[in-house]
Amino acid sequence: MTRVSIIGASGYTGGELLRILNDHPEVEIIQATSRSKLGEYIYQTHPNLRKRTQLKFSDPADLESVDVLFLGLPHKQAQHMIEEYANIASRIVDLSGDFRLRDPKVYERWYGEPHVAPEWLSKFIYGLPELHREDLKTANYVSGVGCNATASNLALLPLVQNNLIDPAARVIIELKVGSSEGGVAGNPGSHHPERANVIRTFSTYGHRHTAEVLQEMGLKDVTLTMTSVDLVRGVLATAHAVLKPGVQNKDLWKAYRGAANDNPFLRVVKEQRGVYRVPEPKILSGSNYADLGFDFDPETGHIVSICAIDNLMKGASGSAVQCMNLMLGLDETTGLGFPGLHPI
Amino acid sequence: MTRVSIIGASGYTGGELLRILNDHPEVEIIQATSRSKLGEYIYQTHPNLRKRTQLKFSDPADLESVDVLFLGLPHKQAQHMIEEYANIASRIVDLSGDFRLRDPKVYERWYGEPHVAPEWLSKFIYGLPELHREDLKTANYVSGVGCNATASNLALLPLVQNNLIDPAARVIIELKVGSSEGGVAGNPGSHHPERANVIRTFSTYGHRHTAEVLQEMGLKDVTLTMTSVDLVRGVLATAHAVLKPGVQNKDLWKAYRGAANDNPFLRVVKEQRGVYRVPEPKILSGSNYADLGFDFDPETGHIVSICAIDNLMKGASGSAVQCMNLMLGLDETTGLGFPGLHPI
Amino acid sequence: MTRVSIIGASGYTGGELLRILNDHPEVEIIQATSRSKLGEYIYQTHPNLRKRTQLKFSDPADLESVDVLFLGLPHKQAQHMIEEYANIASRIVDLSGDFRLRDPKVYERWYGEPHVAPEWLSKFIYGLPELHREDLKTANYVSGVGCNATASNLALLPLVQNNLIDPAARVIIELKVGSSEGGVAGNPGSHHPERANVIRTFSTYGHRHTAEVLQEMGLKDVTLTMTSVDLVRGVLATAHAVLKPGVQNKDLWKAYRGAANDNPFLRVVKEQRGVYRVPEPKILSGSNYADLGFDFDPETGHIVSICAIDNLMKGASGSAVQCMNLMLGLDETTGLGFPGLHPI
Amino acid sequence: MTRVSIIGASGYTGGELLRILNDHPEVEIIQATSRSKLGEYIYQTHPNLRKRTQLKFSDPADLESVDVLFLGLPHKQAQHMIEEYANIASRIVDLSGDFRLRDPKVYERWYGEPHVAPEWLSKFIYGLPELHREDLKTANYVSGVGCNATASNLALLPLVQNNLIDPAARVIIELKVGSSEGGVAGNPGSHHPERANVIRTFSTYGHRHTAEVLQEMGLKDVTLTMTSVDLVRGVLATAHAVLKPGVQNKDLWKAYRGAANDNPFLRVVKEQRGVYRVPEPKILSGSNYADLGFDFDPETGHIVSICAIDNLMKGASGSAVQCMNLMLGLDETTGLGFPGLHPI
Repeated sequence: MTRVSIIGASGYTGGELLRILNDHPEVEIIQATSRSKLGEYIYQTHPNLRKRTQLKFSDPADLESVDVLFLGLPHKQAQHMIEEYANIASRIVDLSGDFRLRDPKVYERWYGEPHVAPEWLSKFIYGLPELHREDLKTANYVSGVGCNATASNLALLPLVQNNLIDPAARVIIELKVGSSEGGVAGNPGSHHPERANVIRTFSTYGHRHTAEVLQEMGLKDVTLTMTSVDLVRGVLATAHAVLKPGVQNKDLWKAYRGAANDNPFLRVVKEQRGVYRVPEPKILSGSNYADLGFDFDPETGHIVSICAIDNLMKGASGSAVQCMNLMLGLDETTGLGFPGLHPI
Repeated sequence: MTRVSIIGASGYTGGELLRILNDHPEVEIIQATSRSKLGEYIYQTHPNLRKRTQLKFSDPADLESVDVLFLGLPHKQAQHMIEEYANIASRIVDLSGDFRLRDPKVYERWYGEPHVAPEWLSKFIYGLPELHREDLKTANYVSGVGCNATASNLALLPLVQNNLIDPAARVIIELKVGSSEGGVAGNPGSHHPERANVIRTFSTYGHRHTAEVLQEMGLKDVTLTMTSVDLVRGVLATAHAVLKPGVQNKDLWKAYRGAANDNPFLRVVKEQRGVYRVPEPKILSGSNYADLGFDFDPETGHIVSICAIDNLMKGASGSAVQCMNLMLGLDETTGLGFPGLHPI
Repeated sequence: MTRVSIIGASGYTGGELLRILNDHPEVEIIQATSRSKLGEYIYQTHPNLRKRTQLKFSDPADLESVDVLFLGLPHKQAQHMIEEYANIASRIVDLSGDFRLRDPKVYERWYGEPHVAPEWLSKFIYGLPELHREDLKTANYVSGVGCNATASNLALLPLVQNNLIDPAARVIIELKVGSSEGGVAGNPGSHHPERANVIRTFSTYGHRHTAEVLQEMGLKDVTLTMTSVDLVRGVLATAHAVLKPGVQNKDLWKAYRGAANDNPFLRVVKEQRGVYRVPEPKILSGSNYADLGFDFDPETGHIVSICAIDNLMKGASGSAVQCMNLMLGLDETTGLGFPGLHPI
Repeated sequence: MTRVSIIGASGYTGGELLRILNDHPEVEIIQATSRSKLGEYIYQTHPNLRKRTQLKFSDPADLESVDVLFLGLPHKQAQHMIEEYANIASRIVDLSGDFRLRDPKVYERWYGEPHVAPEWLSKFIYGLPELHREDLKTANYVSGVGCNATASNLALLPLVQNNLIDPAARVIIELKVGSSEGGVAGNPGSHHPERANVIRTFSTYGHRHTAEVLQEMGLKDVTLTMTSVDLVRGVLATAHAVLKPGVQNKDLWKAYRGAANDNPFLRVVKEQRGVYRVPEPKILSGSNYADLGFDFDPETGHIVSICAIDNLMKGASGSAVQCMNLMLGLDETTGLGFPGLHPI
């Protein structure tokens, strides 16, 4: 059994890691830390784990050595502690934004201040298996992924990997997101009477996750616009781009089907009948699947590529566990078998 | 024009008062106070009032004399200031719980500490026009009503006023409520990812609003049980009681129709066809109506009496304005004409 | 009093017309027709009107002459009957898509078959007062507006009227919409367990409302992409365009403020603090306001212009009544005073 | 591997069976029938199963012999076919209401017509393992359970099994339920604009599930009142009863803890802190747990006992699979390990 611990386990991504790892057949959870919940049963915070584990939150100052360490801290904390964490575990998966960008200057531009451990940036692999599967198999340090970046990158993956769009052309990605994206800490806008029923555009351009799309897709002109809707889990990315001249319907089908064939958690959803014809995040709650769809206007070459994920799974903890599986030489789907619910 | 001010106008009941009074044909709003929002436009807090008023929140320490003063403060504050407020306005409507109960001992029992101005309790009329219309016409001091108490009292009104149930028998009232009941201040349980989708029973018995039902209905054994559901506005009270022997269907119809005939904001909803056969709070959002329905088992005499209201309207600010109208000799429906929306 | 009737009044736009007109101070409702609900009280279908009107649905085959006739029929019906309707009323407002497009060829292209009364297309004024106020004052025949077209047109209005974008450049408009857009008739996808919680992109390009944007804005390359979210009322349009070189922040403010100054139901929402900083449809339920906001990237000239409306009000019945007011020489805001609710 | 088939697999309980059984380690699904979806991939109807199974819906007229047959038909169908089904499989689990009641007269009273195969009623075991575990281990024929009956029976189980309430006294159970209870077929009231945001009491007394509570709990006077709320999955039962004289807090704790100790899917939720202090259905979506809580008024002996379940799991398909496990001599939790999600 692989011994794993989770630093910062009282938030939503930490809870989701606990849910997955607690039932993971190859893993034993050693510690789950939380300063604010120290000594409490984790099921008091994550009530779905009642009767599933008697683990209590432990002190982050008091860590045992383990095989794999997951870091679920707020942004800009892990970079201060990365040396110490590396002494505790030879393999680290950091879910924060601290080690996602390879270039310290790019980091500084998007996060507003210099990185405090810039020499570590090159040691990390960006933690999206659909983009870096082979590198992840030998990696010791893996970053998490931004949830919006993941929905965007996967929407673009078939187009970019198959060279179907011009990398210099403008791409607009509209993201519709649930409230769990905002994390466990409340604010006046997350108070239920204010947050319920919203269609609230909270970022028009310049969101940090844009940097992950630029880096990973190699594009030049990408805008991410994000709108909150009345849902807890889920992201839908709708990417608007223009196909290169001559690209045809069959090229698109080949590209999308190829992506689904190459990646166990990608699926193409493009049906002519029934209720579920396009990717939808609601049926992905708790699942690690990313559903892809597309449509295009043959007159203009305008393509709309769509990706739906659960932001806490494929957009965070699910991908993190998938990366761990690859690092450990396990089947990458291990422990990630929940298919989602219908209806929901 | 009647000059009115609102103390504590940044909360939800204050906002609803501002919405109603800003369009009330007989009223001019002089001041709306808020310590935390001092100097800001009220439309920044209550965004529905943008382009409707340029009023800013003013300082509660700096009040002008007015004809009517509405108090929208948290519980246990108005009683400390009631003498000063009485010097500013000859008529006061207090929406808090401070002056709803007539007996200081009863107040102390339910609110956990002695009332600081017990001599004022007898000066206030309980502010539900359906129970105290005549007294309200000559009142200077009017209490607000608890929203759950109002749904409960109106569900029971036809039964009690027509002497159809035994006042000593057990009555169980199950209330399903929206999130605006909890007020404008957030807490961990009101954070959207936690509060969305709930069916959460937050009070099994002993809620303070019970005291208002006991007092106003003259019953001996009443339990209010309250469950939050995923809705912002609305309360549904489902009251379970036992009819006196011999009470028949026609007696019930007479009682409920009589209540609706006597009170402009009461309606009976008991249809045999269509989607809307029973009282439902959602179509009452923004409306001052209380919809009543009933059903009973002739074998056992078990009666289920149902009342739906908007907790911020009939359950708070709507009834408060209705009381003001009565105090001022106006038609009691003035300014309360919005019928609600369908669909919603 | 102006005598008005509504043909096809059992649907959602018909219900909203009934709500508005029933409280309109200058109007008397003569008939509201429905074949399927013939003889029933309208409050059985539109339960918010209980105790507000005793009107019953009447037979569309049995119409009285009136001053203004509102047509709330499904698309492709009114064009077959327009001559007869014109014999009944000298003024007609048709809420369907039948008379929105001026060019019969354009109509045929978007609606898939030839118009049966093409000579009538030129007699109608497109019913958005913000675009055709002066023409509406002398109009006899007014079309309705597509709800998505209206949110799109109003999002673009300040940019187009002030010549801030290139009319030949590509404009992408992402619309997020509530379920009432789909009308009163159910289908497997509107069944609550399937429709709840969705983020479901139902039109990527080619939606009929696009034709109204092309016609009214004079643009060449517009894509409307539409996504259903878990809300009943509301549309948010997020329009992506590119500013002409040299356009500055102050030009934008001038354009948006100008639009709000010129039009009683337009508001600019662009706050630096508070919960409500951007346009949001939820606070517009039942209101005729259209809230506008914008943001732009000075580096690229990418502008995001946002418009929120209630699809049944500004996007349908509210604009229709506003047009009627203009046709009748009334203040255009008459009967449209409800400001919306907060919280909701 | 045990060979199983599902008759009537296109509905919600059928879909949930497919989800569970498709990942069940001891089971192979042979056929899933649907007349209306014949020949279609089951993932087109149950989109969560895309990439999980290539099974298509087969013809109910063309059944293979299997070890276990699940019947997911509408009420009043299985009783007509039970002989034929018994020829196909030696073990049957019928999820409909056809074989839940033991007494043909009781069946006729609640279902309004005589049972067509009354001799079969005594061959079936009521399929709630918490009540009939030992009998289920040797059963060949097992009924399903009503979802509302299950929430009610489990809320009462600790009180009845420990003899803490008088079986002749009045018990009122208020149930709040999600929309998936109504099944896959739409109706005007399930159309999203009408069904969203509801608090709609659809049964005041006399619901068929009452018969299952009377039969299984041995009580004399039970009322079930049911109210729909805006949720897809979930039931909360709030049972009001009166404790026998002398029953104390410790007796209650002993009873509830005992129930949780004896039954792997029962949990007691009664916390003094945190957000999740009481049973809530939302965290149970997809899980087979039933969460129990209680509160009582020592002055009056009034007890409120609460049970939360997922109506499609513990209230239907989850219990059905649990019964199958018992019938097959497997660990009863096999294949039922999903713990639910938080947040959701």
